Amino acid sequence: MTVTKAAGFRSAGIAVGLKSTGKPDLALVVNDGPHPAAAVVFTGNRAQANPILWSKQAMRARTPRAIVLNSGGANCFTGDFGFETSRLTAEAAAAELGLEASEVLVCSTGLIGTGDQAFRDKIVTNVPTLVRQLSDDDETAAAAILTTDSVEKNGFFESEAGWRIAAIAKGAGMLAPGLATMLVVITTDAVMNNESLARALATGSELSFNRLDSDGCMSTNDQVTLLASGASGVEADEVQFAEALTEVMRDLAKQLQADAEGATHDIDIEVVGAADEQDAEEVGRAVARNNLFKAAIFGNDPNWGRVLAAIGTTKADFDPYKVDVSFNGVRLCSEGAPDRPVDDCDLTPRNTHVLIDLKAGEHTATILTNDLTHEYVHENSAYSS
Amino acid sequence: MTVTKAAGFRSAGIAVGLKSTGKPDLALVVNDGPHPAAAVVFTGNRAQANPILWSKQAMRARTPRAIVLNSGGANCFTGDFGFETSRLTAEAAAAELGLEASEVLVCSTGLIGTGDQAFRDKIVTNVPTLVRQLSDDDETAAAAILTTDSVEKNGFFESEAGWRIAAIAKGAGMLAPGLATMLVVITTDAVMNNESLARALATGSELSFNRLDSDGCMSTNDQVTLLASGASGVEADEVQFAEALTEVMRDLAKQLQADAEGATHDIDIEVVGAADEQDAEEVGRAVARNNLFKAAIFGNDPNWGRVLAAIGTTKADFDPYKVDVSFNGVRLCSEGAPDRPVDDCDLTPRNTHVLIDLKAGEHTATILTNDLTHEYVHENSAYSS
Repeated sequence: MTVTKAAGFRSAGIAVGLKSTGKPDLALVVNDGPHPAAAVVFTGNRAQANPILWSKQAMRARTPRAIVLNSGGANCFTGDFGFETSRLTAEAAAAELGLEASEVLVCSTGLIGTGDQAFRDKIVTNVPTLVRQLSDDDETAAAAILTTDSVEKNGFFESEAGWRIAAIAKGAGMLAPGLATMLVVITTDAVMNNESLARALATGSELSFNRLDSDGCMSTNDQVTLLASGASGVEADEVQFAEALTEVMRDLAKQLQADAEGATHDIDIEVVGAADEQDAEEVGRAVARNNLFKAAIFGNDPNWGRVLAAIGTTKADFDPYKVDVSFNGVRLCSEGAPDRPVDDCDLTPRNTHVLIDLKAGEHTATILTNDLTHEYVHENSAYSS
Repeated sequence: MTVTKAAGFRSAGIAVGLKSTGKPDLALVVNDGPHPAAAVVFTGNRAQANPILWSKQAMRARTPRAIVLNSGGANCFTGDFGFETSRLTAEAAAAELGLEASEVLVCSTGLIGTGDQAFRDKIVTNVPTLVRQLSDDDETAAAAILTTDSVEKNGFFESEAGWRIAAIAKGAGMLAPGLATMLVVITTDAVMNNESLARALATGSELSFNRLDSDGCMSTNDQVTLLASGASGVEADEVQFAEALTEVMRDLAKQLQADAEGATHDIDIEVVGAADEQDAEEVGRAVARNNLFKAAIFGNDPNWGRVLAAIGTTKADFDPYKVDVSFNGVRLCSEGAPDRPVDDCDLTPRNTHVLIDLKAGEHTATILTNDLTHEYVHENSAYSS
């Protein structure tokens, strides 16, 4: 399942030697229309990679028709030379596809600081080969954007009205709000305009990727690109489209969580009884970013004290001595005091549910995170990334 | 070296069975005057342990004359029963010492949720023994407040004017601003009033413990207590006293950093060229809390890209493409681009210096932190704390 499951798109993925493993590392997605439209969400990090700078500039000029993505190097903090590389990449693809360079977005992922002449050459000289591989029944693009991911991530939705949404994604590390270390390309053959796509993408991001906070670290290269071809000929209902898009993005976020670097638990922190949604999110995020809590979950220890210590650092509206905390359905803390014995709670399953009732209102939010493990430390200390 | 190095103080530490190891776990410090004064800084966490609630109430009523400290249980989120335990502890000490209960502060450290009848009995029934052990040449109190610390922490300063400052501290985990998981008792025989002590303690905390951010986690039980006896008979110059106090506290902060759970590197993140001191602190703290950066240091990897990715998440005033980053004196990133090769930099020494020049002003701040290690994960997953 790939982005070409939506009509009006071709894609391809090839290996050009950016990855030392020899695995695929260069991908291309082309929107053949007939009604091309697009929306993009970029990382909220002020430290932005050159492909981000290029893509932002291109988005201001034209509606994108194609996107080139590479793994094996972030082309971030590589100076003017690095920006030039992104521009030359777009120009090479545009020349082959009969487009303007400003109709081609660029995404890169990998080690920050990587982006020398060899990096540039491997990409730019191989763009013609990549274009020749384009197919409307492609299975190769998804793998070419992966870094330390162990599996490909795909999304798909088909509406009764006849339009489809398809997606590929990569995640693995630096999963934090304002986007994770993720590259995502979502395609749809619904007939949509740029404004509707932008609204749907903003809502979907807020409720999916922005609530995934695996390790509190925000990347310099994140980009979620939504492309519509209109090839189904069906104008999608905006509300229905936004709902479907949010579901596809939530599903991708769960896949990213499930494949986060070194994780042994997927933790859903559900905050209920909040005075407003922002409070619920702040409380959930404070827990998701607490290393002592995350290490406890790795040890299958339902340490509710660390949950309360974490939420006590927030400005959210609640009384710490009214709060209930449950782990996997067992209420261990009631009104800020011990409730059922911790031995009643089994944290050995990978899926872990933490329920925090603030008793301060009716609002709720769920933050997705992972545990802090030996393997996380190993992956992020033994190898540069 | 202990708190009795300052004249006018007695202290003691004994084992009462709160720690399963049988090590000392109950301490007492008494201020015999003749001019007792005090100042206290409490945790900024809204989730506050019962001894914190008791001590805050006592401080509002009277100038404290004594402080009881236990390790082996935090007495936090233990309900009204837990508050009663703190009150009974103070009453027991007051009865033996001929004081009012509100002249006795209480501190606890250990596992949140611990504070049952057995915990209470072990403390309250052993207070008379503890009082009998009091000595003005005591070496036993420092050990009784330790938890996972591997060594005792002490501080000492002697002025030419004839007054002294002495201190004991415990740290180990949950080292973050707004105080770490720390209990600190600082004594001085200078003649001081409550207001001068409060000002000096606030300044000293800001420049020492509040800039120690070992693992981003803030405790529920932190308390730094400063007691003056006036026994030297010398009125201290307020500026000179504040400077000396800050130095003693900085020295304690370095000792806490050096003994942080599972750490293999002590990392000083020095931010210079900031538009104001708050910016410098925010930037340093963003790096100190970045798990990918911390894991890289564990792996002796001077990953300057992760530094830039971390500081890009702040609101501080700087241009990411102007920033220089050096590790242990080697500038690896200049104006947001690679400078000297990373192989020129040796991160094998435990002391690690990261210098970030924001080039946005004249202000500076240094944040102390540690690396993220297998041992940190192990200590905080294999054992409840």
